[in-house]
Amino acid sequence: MARYCFCLQVKPERMAEYAERHRAVWPEMRQALTDTGWRNYSLFLRDDGLLIGYVEADDLAAAQAAMARTEVNARWQAEMAEFFTGLEERGPDEGFQLLTEVFHLEGK
Amino acid sequence: MARYCFCLQVKPERMAEYAERHRAVWPEMRQALTDTGWRNYSLFLRDDGLLIGYVEADDLAAAQAAMARTEVNARWQAEMAEFFTGLEERGPDEGFQLLTEVFHLEGK
Repeated sequence: MARYCFCLQVKPERMAEYAERHRAVWPEMRQALTDTGWRNYSLFLRDDGLLIGYVEADDLAAAQAAMARTEVNARWQAEMAEFFTGLEERGPDEGFQLLTEVFHLEGK
Repeated sequence: MARYCFCLQVKPERMAEYAERHRAVWPEMRQALTDTGWRNYSLFLRDDGLLIGYVEADDLAAAQAAMARTEVNARWQAEMAEFFTGLEERGPDEGFQLLTEVFHLEGK
């Protein structure tokens, strides 16, 4: 299993609504993420709209591809697209900027 | 157990050296983090020097305070300080900007 971190940029004026929507992610969207191998997945928001995603997966590219084949993902991403800047023609799930892991400690 | 995400800013011209240093974190530093309750702790670096930390802990403030009381942390943070910008008079371990968790999926 690998760990991944990505960034997106939420429009600052839409942050409150973005957070509100994520308190009520559709159960079928959560189920699809689970079914396609997204594990320990969290989203964090900085006060300027920087959105950080952290997720664990056996293979994120495969999990993204499997998710992209679901009908619920297309509906969800279409509703989320307006919250972001800098995506150009991509969906939020296609505009991930992956960061490089430079340190890991398992702990206990 | 809670999940935490924080940001720091590494000087872009020092990123390679910062990453190199983190491939060889002192064993006693790793042990101190483990002993003070830092779990599943990762650092990720974006190509402009944005550093993202993800860590799980029962109470990060308590884990930070416990770490701050160790001698090895003082030595490590003194060596790391020069890699960062925007810390003013604080050490890297005191300048954490915590983000807000807006979504979590446990997965399976």
